[in-house]
Amino acid sequence: MVHAESSTFAQGLSKKEVYAQILEQAKELFDGQRNWVCNLANTSSLLYNGLRSLPSPSNAVNWAGFYVLDPTKSHQLILGPFHGQVACQTIAFGKGVCGAAATSQKTQLVKDVEQFPGHIACDGASKSEIVVPILQSGKLVAIIDIDCAELEGFSSEDQEALEALAELIAASSDF
Amino acid sequence: MVHAESSTFAQGLSKKEVYAQILEQAKELFDGQRNWVCNLANTSSLLYNGLRSLPSPSNAVNWAGFYVLDPTKSHQLILGPFHGQVACQTIAFGKGVCGAAATSQKTQLVKDVEQFPGHIACDGASKSEIVVPILQSGKLVAIIDIDCAELEGFSSEDQEALEALAELIAASSDF
Repeated sequence: MVHAESSTFAQGLSKKEVYAQILEQAKELFDGQRNWVCNLANTSSLLYNGLRSLPSPSNAVNWAGFYVLDPTKSHQLILGPFHGQVACQTIAFGKGVCGAAATSQKTQLVKDVEQFPGHIACDGASKSEIVVPILQSGKLVAIIDIDCAELEGFSSEDQEALEALAELIAASSDF
Repeated sequence: MVHAESSTFAQGLSKKEVYAQILEQAKELFDGQRNWVCNLANTSSLLYNGLRSLPSPSNAVNWAGFYVLDPTKSHQLILGPFHGQVACQTIAFGKGVCGAAATSQKTQLVKDVEQFPGHIACDGASKSEIVVPILQSGKLVAIIDIDCAELEGFSSEDQEALEALAELIAASSDF
């Protein structure tokens, strides 16, 4: 199979089916490959292309990617691989939705980013967001960050699937 | 300025103007930030969004990103940040268009990938490709790789601008 096909999603799939394909393809891509940059780059493609193949609001996803621990500064995240428009390079722990997920080590499911205290507007078009921490041995190593240009772009179904993906990444990649 | 605006390209710009914006925005984004993952992630967004804002054939660009030296195996490239569909994780020096650029340290401008000996078909939809080496002190550290779903997607104008971008990346990022 040529690799591009892994991120081609048939029209008419349910969100459950799209996440199942993302998880299955990620598992295959990580097999024998533990380089985190490589694995997160391919995963950002799977997430972006998968979610945008779905009906509204998921087709309005405008950013899907990762921040990782900044090796040069403690309590700071730095931009990793992503799909979407240019993004903030660094985010301090505790700042905005990403920073809250990093500090609390808990998923942040934000229906309206304008209502989130200290929200960082990297892209004024983003209206809702989900951020899922990736933990190795209880320590934060990265976060999954997805933005949507619609309000309430994400639900508990996204949260469950992305938390499973975060566990797979943590088990499969060396940071 | 919110960061996303750096990768918003006005309609009707010439290719020269788009590359000027890419170079200018990359320079700003790299200012004070030498992390290669962060810098290449944002640059892949600039390239993908910039080229796709242009008329045919540039609007058929279907992959824009980077491969870097694989830290675990000599004479091998490994996938870095990109925009597009899921891609091959590793490429040996000398294999396909990327491998040829890595071995020769010369830009490969390929009008028809089917005519290139040993072409790796990560995506069967790609018809033309340009690969530009990124060198630090004469040593290869990474390559810029861009694919197009049209034949003859790239010209000497792309080559000149991408070689300038490769020099900027080499001067601004620690690999």
